[in-house]
Amino acid sequence: MFGTFYTSQDVVSSALSGALLATFATAALCFVGLSWTNEKWRVPLGIVGVAALVSALGYTGATALWLTAAKASAGMRFSGWFTIHPLQVAAVYFFANAVGKVPAGVFWRMTAAALLMVFSRYLGDAGFFDPTLGALLSIGFWLYILGEMYFGAMPDVLRKSSRAVRLGFFWIRLIMTIGWAIYPILHFVDVVIGAGQASGVVALYTLFDLINLITPSLIVLAVAGQERY
Amino acid sequence: MFGTFYTSQDVVSSALSGALLATFATAALCFVGLSWTNEKWRVPLGIVGVAALVSALGYTGATALWLTAAKASAGMRFSGWFTIHPLQVAAVYFFANAVGKVPAGVFWRMTAAALLMVFSRYLGDAGFFDPTLGALLSIGFWLYILGEMYFGAMPDVLRKSSRAVRLGFFWIRLIMTIGWAIYPILHFVDVVIGAGQASGVVALYTLFDLINLITPSLIVLAVAGQERY
Amino acid sequence: MFGTFYTSQDVVSSALSGALLATFATAALCFVGLSWTNEKWRVPLGIVGVAALVSALGYTGATALWLTAAKASAGMRFSGWFTIHPLQVAAVYFFANAVGKVPAGVFWRMTAAALLMVFSRYLGDAGFFDPTLGALLSIGFWLYILGEMYFGAMPDVLRKSSRAVRLGFFWIRLIMTIGWAIYPILHFVDVVIGAGQASGVVALYTLFDLINLITPSLIVLAVAGQERY
Amino acid sequence: MFGTFYTSQDVVSSALSGALLATFATAALCFVGLSWTNEKWRVPLGIVGVAALVSALGYTGATALWLTAAKASAGMRFSGWFTIHPLQVAAVYFFANAVGKVPAGVFWRMTAAALLMVFSRYLGDAGFFDPTLGALLSIGFWLYILGEMYFGAMPDVLRKSSRAVRLGFFWIRLIMTIGWAIYPILHFVDVVIGAGQASGVVALYTLFDLINLITPSLIVLAVAGQERY
Amino acid sequence: MFGTFYTSQDVVSSALSGALLATFATAALCFVGLSWTNEKWRVPLGIVGVAALVSALGYTGATALWLTAAKASAGMRFSGWFTIHPLQVAAVYFFANAVGKVPAGVFWRMTAAALLMVFSRYLGDAGFFDPTLGALLSIGFWLYILGEMYFGAMPDVLRKSSRAVRLGFFWIRLIMTIGWAIYPILHFVDVVIGAGQASGVVALYTLFDLINLITPSLIVLAVAGQERY
Repeated sequence: MFGTFYTSQDVVSSALSGALLATFATAALCFVGLSWTNEKWRVPLGIVGVAALVSALGYTGATALWLTAAKASAGMRFSGWFTIHPLQVAAVYFFANAVGKVPAGVFWRMTAAALLMVFSRYLGDAGFFDPTLGALLSIGFWLYILGEMYFGAMPDVLRKSSRAVRLGFFWIRLIMTIGWAIYPILHFVDVVIGAGQASGVVALYTLFDLINLITPSLIVLAVAGQERY
Repeated sequence: MFGTFYTSQDVVSSALSGALLATFATAALCFVGLSWTNEKWRVPLGIVGVAALVSALGYTGATALWLTAAKASAGMRFSGWFTIHPLQVAAVYFFANAVGKVPAGVFWRMTAAALLMVFSRYLGDAGFFDPTLGALLSIGFWLYILGEMYFGAMPDVLRKSSRAVRLGFFWIRLIMTIGWAIYPILHFVDVVIGAGQASGVVALYTLFDLINLITPSLIVLAVAGQERY
Repeated sequence: MFGTFYTSQDVVSSALSGALLATFATAALCFVGLSWTNEKWRVPLGIVGVAALVSALGYTGATALWLTAAKASAGMRFSGWFTIHPLQVAAVYFFANAVGKVPAGVFWRMTAAALLMVFSRYLGDAGFFDPTLGALLSIGFWLYILGEMYFGAMPDVLRKSSRAVRLGFFWIRLIMTIGWAIYPILHFVDVVIGAGQASGVVALYTLFDLINLITPSLIVLAVAGQERY
Repeated sequence: MFGTFYTSQDVVSSALSGALLATFATAALCFVGLSWTNEKWRVPLGIVGVAALVSALGYTGATALWLTAAKASAGMRFSGWFTIHPLQVAAVYFFANAVGKVPAGVFWRMTAAALLMVFSRYLGDAGFFDPTLGALLSIGFWLYILGEMYFGAMPDVLRKSSRAVRLGFFWIRLIMTIGWAIYPILHFVDVVIGAGQASGVVALYTLFDLINLITPSLIVLAVAGQERY
Repeated sequence: MFGTFYTSQDVVSSALSGALLATFATAALCFVGLSWTNEKWRVPLGIVGVAALVSALGYTGATALWLTAAKASAGMRFSGWFTIHPLQVAAVYFFANAVGKVPAGVFWRMTAAALLMVFSRYLGDAGFFDPTLGALLSIGFWLYILGEMYFGAMPDVLRKSSRAVRLGFFWIRLIMTIGWAIYPILHFVDVVIGAGQASGVVALYTLFDLINLITPSLIVLAVAGQERY
């Protein structure tokens, strides 16, 4: 097996190290962007940049684990998700807050829901309770976050904003609706069904991590760039 | 045992690498925040950012030790505490000093107490004198710090400040009252009783490190963000 | 063989670690340059700087792989190309956009073509379909990007700009026409003919990577420096 | 012996990794401080920050050597001292120069003396000549530096400055008088007497490195912070 | 031999890790200096800072190679020289260009000569042609660079500048005349005579690398600092 190790045929190492470089580039772009954007967009832009950087660090660990032990593990991903998902949800709040006042309670409820969403899936995976229950609970918290984004105070505030901001929010919300569905689905395949971290599971996780993390970050960067004046 | 290594079932590696990424994200947020906050908040914000970065470095070492030697050690934590605890206490002083003049003597006494607090626990753990004595001494220095925060010059200065600042100080003080209680308690469990660095001890240490370090840092960041104008 | 390891006779390690240092220096120069250039040039300059930094990270991995396992692999290069080529194409768009409005559709089409160009070559190399087909598809996407640069909206916008900008664009386009031809050519030698990653292939890949990456970055930096006032 | 490795009982690893984190935190504080201090204090503050960062890098190497080979070496310390001691002496010159013109000749003589001070001790330790002679020569150069600080042009310039500056200079000079005495003393114990790098020697070296490096850096930071307006 | 490993008696490891820390400190000082110097000096200062940083990275690799394999290699040095020497020559051009217009052709000819100077020596060392021929060719390119600096457009421009600038240029040129002579000399000793990378050769290379790299960088920093107003 070492014969194809780290060649293009080894899809896992390509996926992991490709994700490492892509998320790192996203973080670098966001941080460079901090210097040329309007002050009010710096909070959401800084947060998505930090989320991308944390993701790059996480993929550094995952790549090292794969190259030294030929092993992929959901444990590695959870380490990052505990930080990344709350940061992403917080970025959405501050994105809306940049164009109009959104109650601080929305922030607390959404961030808490994001933490609980990751935590309930983790407790199931770690064997503290039934993994199916963990997955179902995490779906509940995820739906709560989506509820805040579709029917809460944020869409009201955004209705009065410019076209670029509304379009950006629309796409970010869509990605968090469709793209985030991969986490419970793959959780069922990996943990509940028991397929484990097969190559296809790792590649799919990585692909959707890229879509779910890089696209919203670049949307925030693009909106901040257009709303400069 | 290597079978569950770095999976979700391996709670220690999840706790350590999760803490590494979370403290790193906190540090990055604080440093990004330095560019958009008012000049007078930069001192406490810079200090909590450095404390979080030092913690991330310490957890990098602890994670590496766990993954290569399947070993957790209080020695690793002490290396960080020598720097982190004095920095956190100094940040509280400069937080109060940002809204009104606090005598410099408070700073010297509190920072010295924080250094001695860690040092007396360390000397007990390293076997220079009885670990129970070390724990008791460290409790004394901790109570002294709390005394300064409850009855010293700082609460007087803060009484005249805005609601956000007072609320922030209230929560930071509460965390240092309740959250910091974990250090002598786990020290008793680990060293005095002799349970050693069991998985539960490591996980609890890490969980409270996260609460004790990340929450006050984010509170300083949030207060600095609200007091921008 | 270890006798000549990492001496000048070992052309591969010289090429890889030389490329690592050269791309890192390029990234550092671009980032230092961000502080002294005009605001409108910061977007393309930031992007080429990030592309060079990602390349330096990729070469760090490739150097480590060569020194520990005496192995070179196209898989390592693909990890970087997925991020670097779209970034470079995006930098060309923002370079033109800095002197006049270029439709956003050009950006989307060119970046997508760059991603597909790398992806089709990767799928061929990884064995998902015939490598010759992958190479031919990638040539098609490359020609599309060149078409946008020669006959699209960008040359129109640039015609009205200063001499330095036009000269810079001319050279960048020339490099992307002649220099990028090395990728399908070496892909045929490496994968289709099956020569593998021989020393000559690695050295040629690296040499052209340097030309294709460093020269356009320095051109953007030089143009941004001259158009300061 | 591996049983106590990296626990609190292993005083050397606690000292080395504690020093690594503490000097790193000092460097980070100085660099964060650069953004909020008056322009004229940036030169000494930048220099002490770089000295602390170099020290952190040196301790990274020393910690790695101890953890992999259970070995401590003065060679590791010399690598850092060659850079750190001249930087510290240069910082004292620029500290005085910030409040009044000090002749450039003082800078050249003091920096050269600092380089020769480290070099003569190194040549003795490396066996190029008698270690006692090296230690005596290094004491001579050290006394010369102290002479410049007590009777040279710097105290004259500082006499006219504010109380905070004078107090800062007083303490820095005191540390360089008393704290730096540890280097020839431990050199005698380590090399001349031949005790080698025993645990006590390493711990003492590290403790005084911390006092000699961190305290003056923080004094410069504190003075620069007070003289902001 | 492991007995003296990384002690002061092991001159090579002291030289390599000392050079690593010293060049890193130089780079850090130059980058810190970027924030307090006049805009027109930022280009040469940024370039010497990047050259020093690349050198520090190169010495990191060389130190690691020595500590793991007890081996020193000219290949490692060439990796850095390909980037460092052209950067240093470019810095001289921009140093002169900061005080008066120097034709761009001088830049192109000097940078190309610096690249060819390193490349011809490398091709000789790697065995592509006779090492004596490579050394002689590299001496020719070096003399060409010196010719530009003594009799070209740069001395004319500098004649009208301030005393500090002229003095700085005088010293940088002297270092490039005398200090750079070490490269062909040691190349003859190492490759042509065949002494290889003996301890003395490594120590001499490192010592002159320090003089040739750190001194001109600090001169640029000092000139930029004096010409602030």
